[in-house]
Amino acid sequence: MKISGKSWIGYENSSYSKLPFHVILPESQKKSDYIFHEVSTQEIDNAVEKAEKAFKTYRNIDSSLKADFLKNIALSLNQYRELLIQTFCEESALPRERANQELDRTIYQLNLFSTCIKNDDWKVVKNNFNTLDIEIKSGVDLEKKLIPIGSVVVFTASNFPFAYSTIGGDVTAALAAGCPVIVKSHYMHAGTGDLVSQVVLQEAKKLGLPDGVFSNLNGFSNDFGKYLVQKEGVKMLTFTGSYKGGKAIQQYINDRQEWIPFFAEMGSVNPIFIADLEDNKEINLQKIASSIANNAGQFCTNPGLIFCLNTDIFKELSIKLTQLLSLEESKNMLHFQIREKFLQKVKILKNKKSSVTLLDENSENSIKLKPILLSMKVEDFLSDPSFHEEVFGSFTILVECNSINDFEKTAHHLKGQITCSIFLTQKQQEEFHDFIDNLAYRCGRIVKNDVPTGVTVHQAMHHGGPFPASSDSRFTAVGPDSIYRFLRPVCYQGFNK
Amino acid sequence: MKISGKSWIGYENSSYSKLPFHVILPESQKKSDYIFHEVSTQEIDNAVEKAEKAFKTYRNIDSSLKADFLKNIALSLNQYRELLIQTFCEESALPRERANQELDRTIYQLNLFSTCIKNDDWKVVKNNFNTLDIEIKSGVDLEKKLIPIGSVVVFTASNFPFAYSTIGGDVTAALAAGCPVIVKSHYMHAGTGDLVSQVVLQEAKKLGLPDGVFSNLNGFSNDFGKYLVQKEGVKMLTFTGSYKGGKAIQQYINDRQEWIPFFAEMGSVNPIFIADLEDNKEINLQKIASSIANNAGQFCTNPGLIFCLNTDIFKELSIKLTQLLSLEESKNMLHFQIREKFLQKVKILKNKKSSVTLLDENSENSIKLKPILLSMKVEDFLSDPSFHEEVFGSFTILVECNSINDFEKTAHHLKGQITCSIFLTQKQQEEFHDFIDNLAYRCGRIVKNDVPTGVTVHQAMHHGGPFPASSDSRFTAVGPDSIYRFLRPVCYQGFNK
Repeated sequence: MKISGKSWIGYENSSYSKLPFHVILPESQKKSDYIFHEVSTQEIDNAVEKAEKAFKTYRNIDSSLKADFLKNIALSLNQYRELLIQTFCEESALPRERANQELDRTIYQLNLFSTCIKNDDWKVVKNNFNTLDIEIKSGVDLEKKLIPIGSVVVFTASNFPFAYSTIGGDVTAALAAGCPVIVKSHYMHAGTGDLVSQVVLQEAKKLGLPDGVFSNLNGFSNDFGKYLVQKEGVKMLTFTGSYKGGKAIQQYINDRQEWIPFFAEMGSVNPIFIADLEDNKEINLQKIASSIANNAGQFCTNPGLIFCLNTDIFKELSIKLTQLLSLEESKNMLHFQIREKFLQKVKILKNKKSSVTLLDENSENSIKLKPILLSMKVEDFLSDPSFHEEVFGSFTILVECNSINDFEKTAHHLKGQITCSIFLTQKQQEEFHDFIDNLAYRCGRIVKNDVPTGVTVHQAMHHGGPFPASSDSRFTAVGPDSIYRFLRPVCYQGFNK
Repeated sequence: MKISGKSWIGYENSSYSKLPFHVILPESQKKSDYIFHEVSTQEIDNAVEKAEKAFKTYRNIDSSLKADFLKNIALSLNQYRELLIQTFCEESALPRERANQELDRTIYQLNLFSTCIKNDDWKVVKNNFNTLDIEIKSGVDLEKKLIPIGSVVVFTASNFPFAYSTIGGDVTAALAAGCPVIVKSHYMHAGTGDLVSQVVLQEAKKLGLPDGVFSNLNGFSNDFGKYLVQKEGVKMLTFTGSYKGGKAIQQYINDRQEWIPFFAEMGSVNPIFIADLEDNKEINLQKIASSIANNAGQFCTNPGLIFCLNTDIFKELSIKLTQLLSLEESKNMLHFQIREKFLQKVKILKNKKSSVTLLDENSENSIKLKPILLSMKVEDFLSDPSFHEEVFGSFTILVECNSINDFEKTAHHLKGQITCSIFLTQKQQEEFHDFIDNLAYRCGRIVKNDVPTGVTVHQAMHHGGPFPASSDSRFTAVGPDSIYRFLRPVCYQGFNK
């Protein structure tokens, strides 16, 4: 298997693309060996047409065959591990250990969904209501079943070339649901995307799945994105990326004649509130430092704000976190563009009089990053919303608070978050009860005495918070329930008579 | 209890409104005795502020108390039945029998939701996945619970002054979920809305529920709607009405800084496909005629198109439906505006060369309507999309088809529908299997050997189809599952340790 440099329009390795581009390898800053091409509108038309046609067959094949499809992709990814890992590392500058972990996660997700759908039980809609007492009106025969929503477009993530890209969480869930998928490959890791696509298509072909059940489109221009999003045959769209990117795509959808559901995950500051660290203090401090530093903080759940209940905690944390973070090795960022945006944002915040720089040992011209730590007082934080925004990368602000009231105020000012975390002792539970209750209303996941990074793929996971963390807080991007984004109920009346 | 003519900003009967207006009583065309006023922006601000404040209390009160609230409203509505029915009939021109039925349905919905939520079991999210085999990663303590989404605005329906208005399906589901509700009362039945609001508020007060858990705003201007929709404190919106109205509100939401979920139900043509009527022919013909004629066809599930498999069926239906419909008494329309729009649309379609008028015994100057029946050939239908659109009222087109292929073609051309129906014999099941499968992908409810009107309030109901039938086909507006529009999951990590 080799990088083809071309898009995959179903089984067809497309040849009449335009706009050549290279992946820029972050460490060497050199072009990769492969030339890619942005797809033409004709190729997009073909991919959508094939997907629509494939939908009529794919939606009706047995769940057990779909389950095999996912399981076989997982097996095949493992067989190509060395080639995939090598390309992943070159294109993302992420370390081998992370690459292997992420591939394992991707394989786990495929197997999880394969298990979830292996029979058809899940298609019948049930709920948890206490419906035993409800009088059922006689004479009407009703059954509600879930059906797939149609062809799905997935905009892949820059920071998860495996687990939230070509055959990542979104694509796996959509295929499990019965939806054909058109992947918009990420230009930062187009080679990885190309290889993974070939694995997916090989397995689809072996099982005789219809042409168009999966396509992989290369491209980066706004025109390309707009044209794809506005195709009539596209019935659902997912996106993982920046607020700006999500907002642009939403605008394309708004301008469609037919509105379609859109799930965008657009980042989060993931505040940590520290009421007390006494229990397991050293372990927790190291956890927090690692959560900030891991993979240069390029996670949607990276903690960007830490609120300290009082001056004592603030002082201790300022010293100890600075020490721990300065011990962290510098880590590669994914791309010079990401690094540049990061430095621009950091510079503005560092230069403000209200902030104090506790740690910044970076040089301007490297793709490497060491964690940056700032501190400030709560009054200054509250009065300047620029400190409330996400800075994508290892950048965290310690905020000195004076009371639980300050916690309440800051939580009230924060926008919707993927996660909020709180460290407190058993004794403080009652005192912080109302605060924790309020905090749940600002996020999709609330974490007690642990860090926000490390999103477990689990049926109880919810990954998606109130706007702008995500575009629809009612759905999750992680775990089996993420399939519900791609399904809709239909009521069958009179079919059991 | 008397009509106040004023809006209810929580418990406060607001007095500083502007823009006076009257309800025009459809039968007499006279103004009702009561002057109403459109709310000011200040009053909208107050209502939203009160709702936000009420949310913090209301979301945390026991489900059993919320269940009592709904049950008590149901009891109280019944006590005021005579006054409510009288006002309903005056303002809507709908007959007493329908008024009583609709009030009963409203009461049923309240009691149903009261039963559903009487304990907290339903708040824990479960699914139907085959998860026994799934390895649970150890060491992470996760639980997913549903929480209410925030303050909800409900735009009420013109055609259901009780069941889809002030304390109709949307409001009941939102209150059950734990969301405060701001009702945008319908100007065609503002008196009914005012009285029902007083019932709701009386019961809220008796239980000591927070001020702002329910508000009822009078108004009709676009500015009013826009201002309300764009308030930051509004977190979810439902709408039942026309495509044009839904589209306007979506645009207001698109222009918000924070996107919010929006459920709009925007009408449907509800096609019936007749492959064979042999089984129970006379009964089915009468059912179809009644489905067209009932309450002047002013239902979102009124059948506007009937496709006949072949010339024999078409001929028989042309004769028999014309006979049956001409026997139907004329029925009041809800409003002269609705009647006017209806006649305009009908005139255009009648005047086209491709259509034949089988029945139209109406005079131009009455609020009364007798069903109108047209017929045409399938080729003409396919080539002119103006025949595919909803005409709100008793108006149906019989389309002469020549084969199952014609059925396939017409289904392919139709936009998303709330319902699709098919009449066929047991013998035809296999032949029509693929057609029925395709049909399910064009609607939210598929009906075999029955008519689309009569939407059962049931946990297996799904009321909401692909666009433009509704804005998000994944949610229902009818039945217990309609509560999920107003809830979002939150993952609690580390809280059971």
